[in-house]
Amino acid sequence: MINFSLMGAGRIGKMHAEIINSHPECNLKYIYDVNNKSSSELANKYGSLATKTAEDALTSNEINAVLIASATPTHIEFITKASKSGKAVFCEKPIDLDIGKVNSCMEEIKDIKTPIQIGFNRRFDNSHRKLKEANELKEIGQLELIVISSRDPEPPGIEYLKAAGGFFRDTTIHDFDLSRFILGDDPIVQVSAFASQLISEECKEVNDHDTAMFILRSKNGVLIHINNSRRAVYGYDQRVEIFGSKGMMISGNQSPTSVEKFTDSYTKANDPIHYFFIERYAQAYKGQFNDFIKTINDKSKASVTFEDGRNALIIANAAYESYNSGKAVNINYE
Amino acid sequence: MINFSLMGAGRIGKMHAEIINSHPECNLKYIYDVNNKSSSELANKYGSLATKTAEDALTSNEINAVLIASATPTHIEFITKASKSGKAVFCEKPIDLDIGKVNSCMEEIKDIKTPIQIGFNRRFDNSHRKLKEANELKEIGQLELIVISSRDPEPPGIEYLKAAGGFFRDTTIHDFDLSRFILGDDPIVQVSAFASQLISEECKEVNDHDTAMFILRSKNGVLIHINNSRRAVYGYDQRVEIFGSKGMMISGNQSPTSVEKFTDSYTKANDPIHYFFIERYAQAYKGQFNDFIKTINDKSKASVTFEDGRNALIIANAAYESYNSGKAVNINYE
Amino acid sequence: MINFSLMGAGRIGKMHAEIINSHPECNLKYIYDVNNKSSSELANKYGSLATKTAEDALTSNEINAVLIASATPTHIEFITKASKSGKAVFCEKPIDLDIGKVNSCMEEIKDIKTPIQIGFNRRFDNSHRKLKEANELKEIGQLELIVISSRDPEPPGIEYLKAAGGFFRDTTIHDFDLSRFILGDDPIVQVSAFASQLISEECKEVNDHDTAMFILRSKNGVLIHINNSRRAVYGYDQRVEIFGSKGMMISGNQSPTSVEKFTDSYTKANDPIHYFFIERYAQAYKGQFNDFIKTINDKSKASVTFEDGRNALIIANAAYESYNSGKAVNINYE
Amino acid sequence: MINFSLMGAGRIGKMHAEIINSHPECNLKYIYDVNNKSSSELANKYGSLATKTAEDALTSNEINAVLIASATPTHIEFITKASKSGKAVFCEKPIDLDIGKVNSCMEEIKDIKTPIQIGFNRRFDNSHRKLKEANELKEIGQLELIVISSRDPEPPGIEYLKAAGGFFRDTTIHDFDLSRFILGDDPIVQVSAFASQLISEECKEVNDHDTAMFILRSKNGVLIHINNSRRAVYGYDQRVEIFGSKGMMISGNQSPTSVEKFTDSYTKANDPIHYFFIERYAQAYKGQFNDFIKTINDKSKASVTFEDGRNALIIANAAYESYNSGKAVNINYE
Repeated sequence: MINFSLMGAGRIGKMHAEIINSHPECNLKYIYDVNNKSSSELANKYGSLATKTAEDALTSNEINAVLIASATPTHIEFITKASKSGKAVFCEKPIDLDIGKVNSCMEEIKDIKTPIQIGFNRRFDNSHRKLKEANELKEIGQLELIVISSRDPEPPGIEYLKAAGGFFRDTTIHDFDLSRFILGDDPIVQVSAFASQLISEECKEVNDHDTAMFILRSKNGVLIHINNSRRAVYGYDQRVEIFGSKGMMISGNQSPTSVEKFTDSYTKANDPIHYFFIERYAQAYKGQFNDFIKTINDKSKASVTFEDGRNALIIANAAYESYNSGKAVNINYE
Repeated sequence: MINFSLMGAGRIGKMHAEIINSHPECNLKYIYDVNNKSSSELANKYGSLATKTAEDALTSNEINAVLIASATPTHIEFITKASKSGKAVFCEKPIDLDIGKVNSCMEEIKDIKTPIQIGFNRRFDNSHRKLKEANELKEIGQLELIVISSRDPEPPGIEYLKAAGGFFRDTTIHDFDLSRFILGDDPIVQVSAFASQLISEECKEVNDHDTAMFILRSKNGVLIHINNSRRAVYGYDQRVEIFGSKGMMISGNQSPTSVEKFTDSYTKANDPIHYFFIERYAQAYKGQFNDFIKTINDKSKASVTFEDGRNALIIANAAYESYNSGKAVNINYE
Repeated sequence: MINFSLMGAGRIGKMHAEIINSHPECNLKYIYDVNNKSSSELANKYGSLATKTAEDALTSNEINAVLIASATPTHIEFITKASKSGKAVFCEKPIDLDIGKVNSCMEEIKDIKTPIQIGFNRRFDNSHRKLKEANELKEIGQLELIVISSRDPEPPGIEYLKAAGGFFRDTTIHDFDLSRFILGDDPIVQVSAFASQLISEECKEVNDHDTAMFILRSKNGVLIHINNSRRAVYGYDQRVEIFGSKGMMISGNQSPTSVEKFTDSYTKANDPIHYFFIERYAQAYKGQFNDFIKTINDKSKASVTFEDGRNALIIANAAYESYNSGKAVNINYE
Repeated sequence: MINFSLMGAGRIGKMHAEIINSHPECNLKYIYDVNNKSSSELANKYGSLATKTAEDALTSNEINAVLIASATPTHIEFITKASKSGKAVFCEKPIDLDIGKVNSCMEEIKDIKTPIQIGFNRRFDNSHRKLKEANELKEIGQLELIVISSRDPEPPGIEYLKAAGGFFRDTTIHDFDLSRFILGDDPIVQVSAFASQLISEECKEVNDHDTAMFILRSKNGVLIHINNSRRAVYGYDQRVEIFGSKGMMISGNQSPTSVEKFTDSYTKANDPIHYFFIERYAQAYKGQFNDFIKTINDKSKASVTFEDGRNALIIANAAYESYNSGKAVNINYE
């Protein structure tokens, strides 16, 4: 049995609590949240204990692993403490919004052997993953283009926006990581970013964007396009296309049912696609967690590393540099 | 140049006039219709001559071929006269509604060498045809099931219904022929018919059906299902499915555009499919005519024969026998 | 907490064990199987107890509910004993292959108030269910046609075939029930059955069929077509179509991913669909179980009743009568 | 009757000859080509006359309209001469590769009243056009994103490449125009271009590209992505997507048939899409010509103007400037 502490009892924390609880080899022992009421309620539901301090949850001897789903500014502190206490660590993305802090943390934990896995859940989606595997096997020949359309159903509230670190670091970071995942050992070397404020008054208020397009280039010359929107009325639009010398593969959207409707005004209409990430990536979140447990059991290296989290942030930062300068920006991962 | 007489200047006649006229090797010389005004108008449009009598159009020495698109009761007389005058004959389905008259005609024309082609246009649809060819090449292995859904957009008027010879002989006859076409040299040996009056008051009035289902069996044991309706609000529904030991092929519906629409209430919605046969089978009607011209040029046998027309009628008659008796009926083609 | 006994530790039993165990309100207490080794192994996995006799599992005071997933000939005995002991009962289909025994059992349990639910899992599939609900809400207007294509991936072994009671009672029974479910309070009144031996030597050996087609008629005149095959190389083909005065809805097949592939020989190719019922109906099996638990909690009537199980068998028996006589057979539910 | 001269008897010229000939109001009178043999052969086929000089074809009193499908360097001379002789002019894109020459020509013809239409055929494709119309009608609300994937089936030969003026001016120019068409009166104000040499040795040899991505911005803030490749093994990939505040519309690819294939390794596979523009845009080429004839008959302004041709070239030139500088380039249409 792997005993878990869960940091954070918000929307994502609740989802992870359920996943931990339903895994036959895991036990959700402690839950911590700055809001004691939230952690107590969640703890009651799963027969866990709500700890008074984060420290208790992070360092208890009874704990083997820590899942961090708390607010972003706490991530680095929690990662450091938990991993220095010998716990396996799973941390939701992003590690932090400040590359300086990320670098310091990296230095701090560089000798730690226990796994630290970052929560880029899309890597574990069965459909997206098929594209990565197909590319590895050269099923579409030499990769030349990647096109990612990634659009949220509706904009978040202003409090979320204030803390989110900007559209590129909050949202596009998933697509940067997914591009890196598909490309494998061909690194992204350049980014150009374009963005607009077309949708959300709240975004304008905090000087953030709600609509964006990107073009990236890999070392081997693969061109990657990403487009993002904070609002798609038809649901959580998540499409990935890879194109190469022998063909194309598209990981398309998914509806909750396989029903098609025919009326006098349209034909073959599917239901709206999944509303948002909890529904769309349910399988991916489970797959991600299973992978983390496998890493613990096998005493192997995390499949999504701290460095992966850092690299995605470096690309997002370079994207802001490009947006501000109107130039393509070369990416320096050092 | 092949000089044509066109018999009939109604809806179907007009369509055929355009096809004849646009064929580089054909000349539409004469047009006959019981309604002189109709034939004159159409003749004017194409620089043809409206003949006063059918005889003139059928037997003129200047004519090489006759296309019969007049009312069903005239078909046999026109086929006989034209073919006995040495003309190549193309006749719209059905040959006649009375198997006795069809048999007499067959006897009458048995020694005629010029081609007589019956207008089962669906055989020339590129999509349906691919299924026939795939079956010939055993692309789906041994054929086991055929499923045909064939539904009109809306019921015809009562005058049409009175003359049409009943739902099975008017509509299903196309599906019987298409089944025969796909089966190739494996004959249909049994039919069971089921029908309802669910849609159209006019159908009830003339004691006809508007909804029907059929199961047929081939000599090799292939089971064939056909379902028909006289009204599909989403357009002219024309689907054919073949299933066998190595897979399945479906010839699906076709929309005028390839546009998909996504809204807050549905996704991936196509436009309504083609409204009716003129639009849906435009390519097939041209392909059918090209095939007839090729038959004339090559002095070869018609690819859809008088016998094909007769056999489809025999199946339709057996279907009525089944409907009336509540029993599966064995088919006798003699 | 609802304490369960599970009868049967075979393939289906194992699936149900996992479902019971993962339900937050349920406890899998006892497992019985004629094969003690099977029940012990499964009991070990879930911290349950393997009972020596069926009696122990069916009547223990510690038990609230019994899930019957044992061999068909045991169903009636187990249903009777369990329900007479005051347990809520869930029984896999079919109740029995012999309508006489089913009728006796019905008489025996007629006064029992605890719920008895029959395992017609497809009723709980989100996609099929949407069709039933759409029909209730008249979303496609007046229902006129139902078309069901239901094909297994590969034929079962000869031992299974010997005990299965024939293709219609083993396989088509699901489609008969699904038709009844969609039709709601419009009963099926007539059936015609057609079948072939085209695929499986084992089927021939036990004089069973592997390919079949059916046409049923409801009291209101709805025509229903079902086609079945014991082998579809592309997976477990499960399609349901409803057609009415205002449109059509199709519950289509489902693939494990949403990936489309484009090569030089085909485009837009999906992965093979789900292999078989365990994968295809995973959501439905869970939904069915949740519904059963809700019935227990609400002290309400089972949503799929003993009578539903009996009626599907009556249709299957009438289908055999039709097959043997070559006639449409009227169905008597008394 | 409108009498036509056709300039150019190559691949595109032949296609236009057929279109002119099959239009009921048009007569293909003269054909000119630098290669006398080509023009004579084509003239023979359609009962036309091959002229010895371009002059004869452009200025004859018997001619009402000139269709220019000759080599690009001849376009400006032919446009000028024909329109100054009072002929209606249809000219294939591009007007010229040199913006200076285009500007001079514009000055030269500024007072001419007869229509001059440029051959951006995609504007007349029924599917793409539906997107433009939907945007005009605000069917998807406020437009925010356009995504165009436009890929040729295989790279052209080196002789073509040498004369083509570069990938952006030869190929992307269609997508620049299509973006302008959809945007309506919202002009494109900025372009960023990215390109690679990944496919074709011939492209490298002439220092051209075979893979490219673009991001454009409209005055209203709409972001437009275009990606191009000179080789797609699955056919001529032509997809356009518009996204806005109320939904999305996609103009997808088209296959010659509506057949779907299911095997043990894939399901729902369509045939390869249309091979190239002649097949894919057959309907658009006809629609474009009909529109030109309507313009002549109505004495109205061409729907695709000389200025449209010039503006697309200006964007292509700015794209090269962006590619060379690594910067987003603002577009100056003056």
